[in-house]
Amino acid sequence: MKSEETIRRLKTIEGHLRGIIRMVEEDAYCIDIIRQIQAVEAALNKVSAQILESHLKSCVTTAIRGDDPNERERVMKEIVEVFEMSSKV
Amino acid sequence: MKSEETIRRLKTIEGHLRGIIRMVEEDAYCIDIIRQIQAVEAALNKVSAQILESHLKSCVTTAIRGDDPNERERVMKEIVEVFEMSSKV
Amino acid sequence: MKSEETIRRLKTIEGHLRGIIRMVEEDAYCIDIIRQIQAVEAALNKVSAQILESHLKSCVTTAIRGDDPNERERVMKEIVEVFEMSSKV
Amino acid sequence: MKSEETIRRLKTIEGHLRGIIRMVEEDAYCIDIIRQIQAVEAALNKVSAQILESHLKSCVTTAIRGDDPNERERVMKEIVEVFEMSSKV
Repeated sequence: MKSEETIRRLKTIEGHLRGIIRMVEEDAYCIDIIRQIQAVEAALNKVSAQILESHLKSCVTTAIRGDDPNERERVMKEIVEVFEMSSKV
Repeated sequence: MKSEETIRRLKTIEGHLRGIIRMVEEDAYCIDIIRQIQAVEAALNKVSAQILESHLKSCVTTAIRGDDPNERERVMKEIVEVFEMSSKV
Repeated sequence: MKSEETIRRLKTIEGHLRGIIRMVEEDAYCIDIIRQIQAVEAALNKVSAQILESHLKSCVTTAIRGDDPNERERVMKEIVEVFEMSSKV
Repeated sequence: MKSEETIRRLKTIEGHLRGIIRMVEEDAYCIDIIRQIQAVEAALNKVSAQILESHLKSCVTTAIRGDDPNERERVMKEIVEVFEMSSKV
């Protein structure tokens, strides 16, 4: 159910991206194209945040409540990694 | 020619995005999906930079060498705006 | 101990920032100043990631292992919020 | 004059950063510290945009109106570089 919402959003973004390709084909103004690309990136950030939220509620909760210290360590490390990367893209 | 390269890159990114939709449909691991979304964003940043470069060499150069102070002001303002936005997405 | 490391890093960044102020006072080349500001931002991102890591290992782990669903909900919501914000700054 | 405004803003940011160091020393809540660091980064982005604007109006305009193609090429390349980097920090 949650992933249907994610798929719906990603398909909207795919449509947006195809619109940008048409803009380039039709020789649209460069700055307008860059702005549309930035809008796609903002939309992708929202999807990532939504996926992270559902990840925290499922896998991360299970791992942290579980008995395996390596697994706990692993899920936390992954969150820090995507957090760090999110400021780089 | 330059825009063919841009179109080619954007189509590759579109394919990448479709791959991410498949990952969500097939219930892939959340963190792997987020990492792929971040890779798409990094690729979009490169395309934006490429478009900005060609914009600087064409429209911006024409405007700055031209006699219309409003036009010069306008192209510079746009660059500052996309620069500021680029750190927000 | 962990926070001593954070303080040490933040003080280094503060010194870096004071160096940038001197660059502006001495009329350094604009692009060099922007690059130094970007280096400060990259360093701040690293500190944030380090703080998030220690937050996950302490407060978040306690909350998720605890019995209060509101508290669990709260800590997860905060992580999603700082993750979303991290792509905007 | 313009650079006095930049210096004033950077000194405000320096004060903000010192406040964050105090927060860490006084063991403030991790998420609050991360949010303050993100506020500092947002403020730094604004200063960068302001510096870029004055750079465009001075050095870049001079170079683009000038007769040296290497110099024109150089200033444009630098703008693309800081633009690309701005999405990475």
